[in-house]
Amino acid sequence: MAKDKKLVEAITSMDTDFAQWYTDVVKKAELIDYSSVKGCMVIKPAGYAIWENIQNELDRRFKETGVENVYMPMFIPESLLQKEKDHVEGFAPEVAWVTHGGLNPLQERMCVRPTSETLFCDFYANDIQSYRDLPKCYNQWCSVVRWEKETRPFLRSREFLWQEGHTAHATAGEAEERTIQMLNLYADFCEEVLAMPVVRGKKTDKEKFAGAEATYTIEALMHDGKALQSGTSHNFGDGFAKAFDIQYTDRDNKLQYVHQTSWGMTTRLIGAIIMVHGDDSGLVLPPRIAPAQVMVIPIQQHKEGVLDKAAELRDILKKAGIRVKMDDSEKSPGWKFSEQEMRGIPIRVELGPKDIEAGKCVLVRRDTREKIECTLDQVAETAERLLQDIQKDMYARAKEHLESHISEVKSYAAFKDAVENKPGFIRAMWCGSEQCEVKIKEDTTATSRCMPLKEEAAVSDVCVCCGKPAHKLVYWGKAY
Amino acid sequence: MAKDKKLVEAITSMDTDFAQWYTDVVKKAELIDYSSVKGCMVIKPAGYAIWENIQNELDRRFKETGVENVYMPMFIPESLLQKEKDHVEGFAPEVAWVTHGGLNPLQERMCVRPTSETLFCDFYANDIQSYRDLPKCYNQWCSVVRWEKETRPFLRSREFLWQEGHTAHATAGEAEERTIQMLNLYADFCEEVLAMPVVRGKKTDKEKFAGAEATYTIEALMHDGKALQSGTSHNFGDGFAKAFDIQYTDRDNKLQYVHQTSWGMTTRLIGAIIMVHGDDSGLVLPPRIAPAQVMVIPIQQHKEGVLDKAAELRDILKKAGIRVKMDDSEKSPGWKFSEQEMRGIPIRVELGPKDIEAGKCVLVRRDTREKIECTLDQVAETAERLLQDIQKDMYARAKEHLESHISEVKSYAAFKDAVENKPGFIRAMWCGSEQCEVKIKEDTTATSRCMPLKEEAAVSDVCVCCGKPAHKLVYWGKAY
Repeated sequence: MAKDKKLVEAITSMDTDFAQWYTDVVKKAELIDYSSVKGCMVIKPAGYAIWENIQNELDRRFKETGVENVYMPMFIPESLLQKEKDHVEGFAPEVAWVTHGGLNPLQERMCVRPTSETLFCDFYANDIQSYRDLPKCYNQWCSVVRWEKETRPFLRSREFLWQEGHTAHATAGEAEERTIQMLNLYADFCEEVLAMPVVRGKKTDKEKFAGAEATYTIEALMHDGKALQSGTSHNFGDGFAKAFDIQYTDRDNKLQYVHQTSWGMTTRLIGAIIMVHGDDSGLVLPPRIAPAQVMVIPIQQHKEGVLDKAAELRDILKKAGIRVKMDDSEKSPGWKFSEQEMRGIPIRVELGPKDIEAGKCVLVRRDTREKIECTLDQVAETAERLLQDIQKDMYARAKEHLESHISEVKSYAAFKDAVENKPGFIRAMWCGSEQCEVKIKEDTTATSRCMPLKEEAAVSDVCVCCGKPAHKLVYWGKAY
Repeated sequence: MAKDKKLVEAITSMDTDFAQWYTDVVKKAELIDYSSVKGCMVIKPAGYAIWENIQNELDRRFKETGVENVYMPMFIPESLLQKEKDHVEGFAPEVAWVTHGGLNPLQERMCVRPTSETLFCDFYANDIQSYRDLPKCYNQWCSVVRWEKETRPFLRSREFLWQEGHTAHATAGEAEERTIQMLNLYADFCEEVLAMPVVRGKKTDKEKFAGAEATYTIEALMHDGKALQSGTSHNFGDGFAKAFDIQYTDRDNKLQYVHQTSWGMTTRLIGAIIMVHGDDSGLVLPPRIAPAQVMVIPIQQHKEGVLDKAAELRDILKKAGIRVKMDDSEKSPGWKFSEQEMRGIPIRVELGPKDIEAGKCVLVRRDTREKIECTLDQVAETAERLLQDIQKDMYARAKEHLESHISEVKSYAAFKDAVENKPGFIRAMWCGSEQCEVKIKEDTTATSRCMPLKEEAAVSDVCVCCGKPAHKLVYWGKAY
């Protein structure tokens, strides 16, 4: 048994050191490995399979709204990056520069894309001529590079995987509609598939995307009470269109600028899943995103008939459309349990000689550790029901955690106290001045996360920082 | 009608100028656009959708053989690239170098991956410890960069999309088995899905991959008689393992080097589809890879009931599992026909007021232009049958083209004549010396494509170039 415990003992507990717990889980659940390329990670099969499920589900939802996939070059010539003033200021300090092709220096250096607004704009400038060409709703799945100084697996790395949608519309109204549509698509995906409740809101001007007219965000709350920006959707108005001269002739044969949006989600979501649902035994995956939903673990597998019966159960579960694996390795059952728990597989099915004799097996929920006995012929329907329950319960627990970690404050003293002593979001009024936003960040390290989209009652009528009249309700918090 | 013809007239005919025909199709079928990044292309929705279908089908086949997907960094530090001597010599002259991160020069420059052997090896050196860790069968879908001087859409560009599989095995035998398994998987995919017959063979030492012990290839024949290398599978033996020190302890607790393979297919396949199946009206897509398999085109759509009935047909076809679209734009039917033909959609369904009155519609095959009338309630079964026929017939025609474009030659005079006057493969014996291979290339521009895997009768017993005894049968040809 000593050996069985090793895997679990190697994890720091969440309460002792949340950051170390996170790193331990990421490594022990075999989601990533560090690479020889500083600040870049290797995404291993268990991690990449989660990303594939995220991709499949998001891609399907995108296509239902008329989005088409394309692929743009990974390089941006420096002159192209510089066309939109705010955008280049935001990104130039953190891009990787290619200066040589083969043995020769380039005439103009190029950066590896940190995001592709400039490339899409350059393309749209030629591709869009008439109102008949609109709207354009394109997306690409790719990797991007941002030269971060501090990196953490999934949360912040020099290269990460994402999708970036870029649309062009005839009117400002259509662009705004698409911006909100994608924000809601992201939020629904997080809530329905990742069992992760989010706050939908708008960024303050200080926090919005470089070059955007408005940035919308979904903010999730991690187990340690810190916020994680989990997806953003930007309305560019006609700013980029003017910088890149993207015009179309309307029905009256007049030239008009297009209105654009962009929106993205990244491998960061995997970090969010870990920090919202994980526990001291490792990862806990929501069934809808779990690469394997059930692990069948035979007990005393050397005894006659055990492996055969276990394989039979696996095949029955597979036939029912459940993603199932069987661990018939030579490890001890205790070790296998620890591994299945570490990897966050939602259900394990235990089956030994005595179970077979009694015509039953035991299902164990990863999230609650509850044991459910059922007869062998009921295994598929029991697993199906449990998977649904787990998905629902995980969402309910995360929702309860979010709601119980919102402090409503009216005074600056209470604000500071909440940042110090009450992990979570802080709801407080703001006058709208960047000065107050900066002061709050300097004094407390908390930042404005978003102004909620859904109408919420005002907390007071004055700014929590300066005391002047305030109409804007803001969710504040420490953030990843 | 003048306007209807414009789309078609803009294409150069294949016989006039094949290269120009290719470029015209690629642009007019809206597969790609040129970008501001020299040598890199924008893959547009119609092109990317073909790639998505290729990806889905290949990925499914990979996973059936136990392959798992991962993601490695896109950068390779220079010192890592240099670890395997032959490999660096092959790739260093054509990589893009990143020298700055943000505002600061890097301590060590890095290239953007031209291929990822070195990254996988670096990873495997830590990840593989014991025989229990083997085999490792990993794959990644990504883009790679090679700084080519001459570029052509899909066929040769500075950045392209691909998959690269990298496996590590306990024995040389297992590595060779995996190398051949993947070559056959590629060949079966080309033949079954792309309707594209290939020659399966082994590269000569001169033509093998930088660092490989053996390279296997599938070679397809384009409409103009030039060969296109369409997929390669490499056996590295333990060469990389020794360079990167990838060792495992075997069952007897002894240290052993692993044996490795890699294999890849790229967006080049889209170029192959165009040049194997296309005609003077544009693209012709095999039904199994076509993003849209049927286009419903209403005739006199302003007349009452036409659009409704057309939509009904579309829904019936969709329900039958066929990928179907309807063109209800304001263009004329002739224009729509031209567009559907240019885009290579396998079947169009024509439906006008008279058809509706007669309770029937007309299906037109893209490949043969044959018209098939059927009653409205038979549209789904008729389309299903036609899609199967088209797939089968396209393969048969391409196979017939391949087989009728193989010259068997015994003398060097005949060889030169064949290169000049008989487009296609040339089957001829070779003594095995690189000298003859180089001479043939210099004299004729033809290169050795492969030595066929399937045993074939010798053409003669002497080398077609030097006249010395020869046992190796080689397929030669001009190539893309």
